[in-house]
Amino acid sequence: DENLKVFTLNSNPALAEEIAKVIGVELGKCSVARFSDGEVQINIEESIRGCDVFIIQSTSAPVNEHIMELLIMIDALKRASAKTINIVMPYYGYARQDRKARAREPITSKLVANLLETAGATRIITLDLHAPQIQGFFDIPIDHLVGVPILGEYFKSKSLEDVVIVSPDHGGVTRARKLAERLKAPIAIIDKRRPRPNVAEVMNIVGQVDGKTAILIDDMIDTAGTITLAANALIESGAKEVYACCTHPVLSGPAIERIQNSNIKELVVTNSIELPEEKKIDKVTELSVAPLMGEAIIRVHEEQSVSTLFD
Amino acid sequence: DENLKVFTLNSNPALAEEIAKVIGVELGKCSVARFSDGEVQINIEESIRGCDVFIIQSTSAPVNEHIMELLIMIDALKRASAKTINIVMPYYGYARQDRKARAREPITSKLVANLLETAGATRIITLDLHAPQIQGFFDIPIDHLVGVPILGEYFKSKSLEDVVIVSPDHGGVTRARKLAERLKAPIAIIDKRRPRPNVAEVMNIVGQVDGKTAILIDDMIDTAGTITLAANALIESGAKEVYACCTHPVLSGPAIERIQNSNIKELVVTNSIELPEEKKIDKVTELSVAPLMGEAIIRVHEEQSVSTLFD
Ligand SMILES: Nc1ncnc2c1ncn2[C@@H]1O[C@H](COP(=O)(O)O)[C@@H](O)[C@H]1O
Ligand SMILES: Nc1ncnc2c1ncn2[C@@H]1O[C@H](COP(=O)(O)O)[C@@H](O)[C@H]1O
Repeated sequence: DENLKVFTLNSNPALAEEIAKVIGVELGKCSVARFSDGEVQINIEESIRGCDVFIIQSTSAPVNEHIMELLIMIDALKRASAKTINIVMPYYGYARQDRKARAREPITSKLVANLLETAGATRIITLDLHAPQIQGFFDIPIDHLVGVPILGEYFKSKSLEDVVIVSPDHGGVTRARKLAERLKAPIAIIDKRRPRPNVAEVMNIVGQVDGKTAILIDDMIDTAGTITLAANALIESGAKEVYACCTHPVLSGPAIERIQNSNIKELVVTNSIELPEEKKIDKVTELSVAPLMGEAIIRVHEEQSVSTLFD
Repeated sequence: DENLKVFTLNSNPALAEEIAKVIGVELGKCSVARFSDGEVQINIEESIRGCDVFIIQSTSAPVNEHIMELLIMIDALKRASAKTINIVMPYYGYARQDRKARAREPITSKLVANLLETAGATRIITLDLHAPQIQGFFDIPIDHLVGVPILGEYFKSKSLEDVVIVSPDHGGVTRARKLAERLKAPIAIIDKRRPRPNVAEVMNIVGQVDGKTAILIDDMIDTAGTITLAANALIESGAKEVYACCTHPVLSGPAIERIQNSNIKELVVTNSIELPEEKKIDKVTELSVAPLMGEAIIRVHEEQSVSTLFD
C-alpha cells in the first residue's frame, strides 16, 4: 500500500526492520544523524505527501536525544504534508514522573505528551505504560497495547510445573493476575514494610511459594534492586526456582551485574527497548513485540479496531 | 527583591553566578541531575509562588539535554505557581535550522519556540540570534540583545591602528558595519565564489586590507572552517595581522585545532556558551555577557524598557 510509510529513528532500528517485515513494506528512506555540534540532522529521502506515516521510536536512553529526534521528525513530516503522523512508541520514557509526589516537581510524562501534540503527532501506539492514567494526558487517540500475552506464551512453551506468579509490589497485582490467568497458576504478592524508620525493609510474602517455581513479573526493570531482592526473599521462603519477566528492560546502572549475581534463573523481557550487546547476557531472553506492533499498525492504517490486541 | 528569582540549569553555571552577582541576588536553590537511566531529575528547593522567575540556560551542546532540562524546569515552575517564567538564553541552539532549504526539512528553530511556549515560558531574553526572523517564531515577548558593543569595547581598549572590519560573508555585513562604526574603521567583505562546479571556492576580498589590521566578525564560529580560510585570504591579500571575534563560540569538531594552527592572532568571544577547559587556549579571549544579561533581567522585572540595550 503506497499510502503507508514506516520510518525508524535511532532507538530501535532492529525492531523497526522486523515490524516492516511483518507488515510487508520497506522502511522509509531517511537519515537521522548529528551535525558537528550535536544538533539533530534529519533528511527524509522520499515523498510522504498524503500518507499515513508511522514513526518507530522508544524514548529509552539516551532519552533526551530520542525525544528530540522524534519531535524534529514529526515537525519535518508535518511540513511535508503527511496525512497522519502516528508515533509507535514501544517504551514511553519519563513515565514514572506522572504526578507531583513532592512540592515543585514537574510532571514530565504530561509535558512529553504536550510536546508530541505540539510538534504535530496525530496518534500514539504504545505498550504497557507505567501508569495507565498517562493515556489521559493525551488529547489525540492513543492505543495502549499490553505485553502479558507475549510473556505468557513464552512461559507456556516452557511447560513449567507448579508455578506461582509473583508481583514484586502491590501496584503490580493486576498485571500478575493477568499472567496467572494465562498460565492457570495462583499468585503471590511481596509486601515490603519498614518496621521502624532507619531500619531495613522487610519483604513479607503473601501467598504460597514453598516448593514452587516462582515467576516475578513487573512492567519495567530499571536498576534491578527490587527484583533481585524479591528473588532472594522467594528463595528464602522455599521457592524451588525463580524466573523474572518484564515488558521494558531499562536495565540501567548496576542492573546487569545484579541480575547476573542474583537468584534469578532467567529474565524474560521484550525488545521494546533495544539491548546493547553488553546487556545481552545468557540469563536474559528477549521476545519480540514486532508481530503485535505490526498488527496494530495495519489495523490503524485500515481503520479497524485495535482493541482485540489489548489482552 | 523577594519576588525576583534566578535559577541556573547546567549549560552556564558560571555565567549564572556572575549574573546573580550583577543583580545582587543569590541563585535559587535547585538541583538538576539525572536518574540512573538518564532521565532529568529536578528538585526546586525553595518556594517561587507568585515570583518573576528567570532561568539561565543556553541551548548549546549537548543541545538536546539542555533543551529538555529547560522544558522540564519550566513545567515544574509553572505547576509551582510562578507568576512569570522568563528564559534567559544567551545562545539559541538550532538557529541554523530556521527555514526549509530543501524538501522535507524540519524547521527546528520554530519547533523549539513552540515547545518553550507549550511548556509555559512567558518571555525570552536572548542574544544575537543567527537570523533575527526567529523573533517572529514566538508569540510571547522576546528581547533580542546584541553582542557587538561588548566586542567593540574590547577592541577599543586594545588601541589597534589602521583597522579594517571584515565580514566573512555577505550575510554578516550589517554586523560588521555596526562594529566598524564603533571603531571608526572601514569595512571589507569576503566574497566566496565557486568558479565552476567541483572546483574549490575562491575567496575574493571586496575592500582594502593591504597593510591593515583586520578584525573578522561573525555571530558564531562552529567548526571554524570559514573563519580560518578567511584569515588566510586576508594575509594573502596583504593584511598585517588578523583578529577574529564572534558572540557564540560553538567551536565543535576540529575548531580549536584549526584556530590554533591558523593565521588568527587572537579570537575574541563571549561566554554565551561556556567553554570547557580544553577549549580555553591562549589565543581565545572570553568576554562576559553577565552585565548585559543582568541589566536586562532587572529591567524586565521592573517593567522598564530593554530597548536601549539593543545597540
Ligand atoms: N527515571 C527515574 N528513575 C528512578 N526513579 C524515578 C524516575 N523518574 C521518576 N522517578 C521517581 O519514581 C517515583 C515514581 O515511581 P512509581 O512509584 O513506581 O510510580 C517518583 O518518586 C519519581 O520521583
Ligand atoms: N547545527 C548545524 N551545523 C551545521 N550546519 C547546520 C546546522 N544546523 C543547520 N545547518 C545547515 O546550515 C544551513 C543554514 O546556515 P546559514 O546559511 O548560515 O543560515 C542549512 O543548510 C542547514 O541545513
